[in-house]
Amino acid sequence: MKRIRKTAGLYFLLATALCVAQDQDDYKPSRVNQHGKAFPKVSSGGSVRAQLLAPEALSVKLDIGGEKYEMIKDSAGVWTGESAPQDAGFHYYQLNIDGASVPDPGTKYYYGAGRWGSGIEIPAPDNKIFALRKVPHGTVVENLYFSQITQQWRRNFIYLPPGYRTSEERYPVLYLQHGSYEDETGWSSQGHANLILDNLIADTEAKPMIVVMDNGYAYAPENSKEGRPDSVFEEVMLKEVIPSIDKEYRTLADREHRAISGLSMGANQTMRILMNNLDTFSYYGGFSGTSNYPSTDLIDVNTFLNGAFSDGKALNEQLNLFWLGLGTKEPDPFPESVGEFKKMLERQGISYTFYESPETAHEWHTWRRCLHQFAQKLFK
Amino acid sequence: MKRIRKTAGLYFLLATALCVAQDQDDYKPSRVNQHGKAFPKVSSGGSVRAQLLAPEALSVKLDIGGEKYEMIKDSAGVWTGESAPQDAGFHYYQLNIDGASVPDPGTKYYYGAGRWGSGIEIPAPDNKIFALRKVPHGTVVENLYFSQITQQWRRNFIYLPPGYRTSEERYPVLYLQHGSYEDETGWSSQGHANLILDNLIADTEAKPMIVVMDNGYAYAPENSKEGRPDSVFEEVMLKEVIPSIDKEYRTLADREHRAISGLSMGANQTMRILMNNLDTFSYYGGFSGTSNYPSTDLIDVNTFLNGAFSDGKALNEQLNLFWLGLGTKEPDPFPESVGEFKKMLERQGISYTFYESPETAHEWHTWRRCLHQFAQKLFK
Repeated sequence: MKRIRKTAGLYFLLATALCVAQDQDDYKPSRVNQHGKAFPKVSSGGSVRAQLLAPEALSVKLDIGGEKYEMIKDSAGVWTGESAPQDAGFHYYQLNIDGASVPDPGTKYYYGAGRWGSGIEIPAPDNKIFALRKVPHGTVVENLYFSQITQQWRRNFIYLPPGYRTSEERYPVLYLQHGSYEDETGWSSQGHANLILDNLIADTEAKPMIVVMDNGYAYAPENSKEGRPDSVFEEVMLKEVIPSIDKEYRTLADREHRAISGLSMGANQTMRILMNNLDTFSYYGGFSGTSNYPSTDLIDVNTFLNGAFSDGKALNEQLNLFWLGLGTKEPDPFPESVGEFKKMLERQGISYTFYESPETAHEWHTWRRCLHQFAQKLFK
Repeated sequence: MKRIRKTAGLYFLLATALCVAQDQDDYKPSRVNQHGKAFPKVSSGGSVRAQLLAPEALSVKLDIGGEKYEMIKDSAGVWTGESAPQDAGFHYYQLNIDGASVPDPGTKYYYGAGRWGSGIEIPAPDNKIFALRKVPHGTVVENLYFSQITQQWRRNFIYLPPGYRTSEERYPVLYLQHGSYEDETGWSSQGHANLILDNLIADTEAKPMIVVMDNGYAYAPENSKEGRPDSVFEEVMLKEVIPSIDKEYRTLADREHRAISGLSMGANQTMRILMNNLDTFSYYGGFSGTSNYPSTDLIDVNTFLNGAFSDGKALNEQLNLFWLGLGTKEPDPFPESVGEFKKMLERQGISYTFYESPETAHEWHTWRRCLHQFAQKLFK
């Protein structure tokens, strides 16, 4: 009801003005605002209210969720406007000032949608899964490494669980990947993987584990300038990342203590890596994605991933966990594509776990919940 | 010559258009641009060229170094403009679109000037001090902790030198603080403290050391909502940060292996902490600041910091290093204020080292150089 479309007429503008007056106490600053910034705000219904001082602008719009919402200028040159209700969770967005798309100066900045830009958080009923609680906390390590395979500097982030530094213990490792147009920063920033694990470990719902978050984009030097070159990410992961993690950190360095998972593009990538390397991993988590993406066709198990799923009985013996998750509001082709994948698993008699995230789409809150669920099943 | 002032007339606009044509091959994308972004660019002379698509805007300005430079629109709605030459090093800046001050969507974002916003890097002749070289690299650890003193969650970043994880060695510790309107992210982001140390350690010019970068803003809970309450940062540092670092990391936990330093506000804070805690630290570095700031008056050694500098002979015996640094282009009151401080040291016969950073102002390149110089003198 508070949505203002570009085509809105006087009626909608008036209605909005009334809504602004009625709902103003319900809007609260987004939790990912810059320190001390009152805007953007979020209502209990999930609408976003943005505000910007732009005295000479002719038009300012709030660009979120694939829609642009006109904002309205007051006599002081301050523009204010609201979006339609957004799904619970984290969203990338921007402002548009007289045709220029720019970050909102009120928010912190996140990498997603192929850019560093504004984020906003619509509170979800289960935000406590990543709350900063008074429990022991792990640390997140920023690690630079030169890849001989790509001939480039790369970076990963490594979560070390609470107690890592004061014990002699060795830990299992989860390799956790981002999606397309995202990077290695996502999981420990907007994904809150560290806080999700801290809370689960404090509540003894997950085993203490190391989590490695690398960058899924990796190309051989000779291909790196071409359009869409073959990825060498699997090779980087197997030959460079895992050996280096096992050398530098106190890991349990065997397949029984190694999991691999990812979201969207990362789910697709890590499933391929899993199936090519069953001697290396025994747990898999695919969040909002499977390797038949974007196809919604029936899967021919003899040809799909070179027949990797053809022997269901052998896979059931080899895999400790094959886990899939999906939001109930995900757009095409995800429901059908993942659906076809599940049917293939069933035809093959392959055991798997399927989790549905209520009322979330192809976005970070789905993936936070997936990690929260998946991590509880690991290394047990 | 390429500066376009707000008051510029037709002559200047034409002159600029010519310069754009002549110099265009000399402008290169800033090294802190977002991946794949061609703008902003920097010329060999240090001018910044910004560009923004804003078809309906009436006015777009580049706001850098305390000046706003008008940009010019082409027929496609793309605005382009250049600044006057800027000092070598890292600068915060923003764009102004019809009165709205916003980050430039072409850059990565940094915390400084009290906000997350755009940064630009004007290459300096000695940028190699923080180059990402093929040498062993340390890691930077993000560490959350709940402060009983402030009753708030706080964060620090901890640099662990190359080899830390694969040795049993214990290391000396440098506590390194940011300046005003900055935070704990600055030193390992735009400051490149990790790369500066990696390079010095690789060249055996500095001892391997741990570096702890905390947040200098800390207030008791009862004061936290007031205007400018008394800082409890010293108490947080001494009672919470240092004991925790000595517990969690393999430190050499004595004054002979502990240094404290900071930039600007951080130099002032850490000097006070040093003089109150000579049993805890034996090395000090003050980058662009001293505790008499902002005074340029002669220092009365009997009253200044409660007479902490009155016994020069004792201080010379206690301190392993008292180090000060300043850029040659720093604005008032820094040269005079630090100058008066040095005169006091000389009157007291206190040994100190003074470093001048050529052609840099009260900005990050001065502080990178200070760290580069200072770190070479530590723990030897």
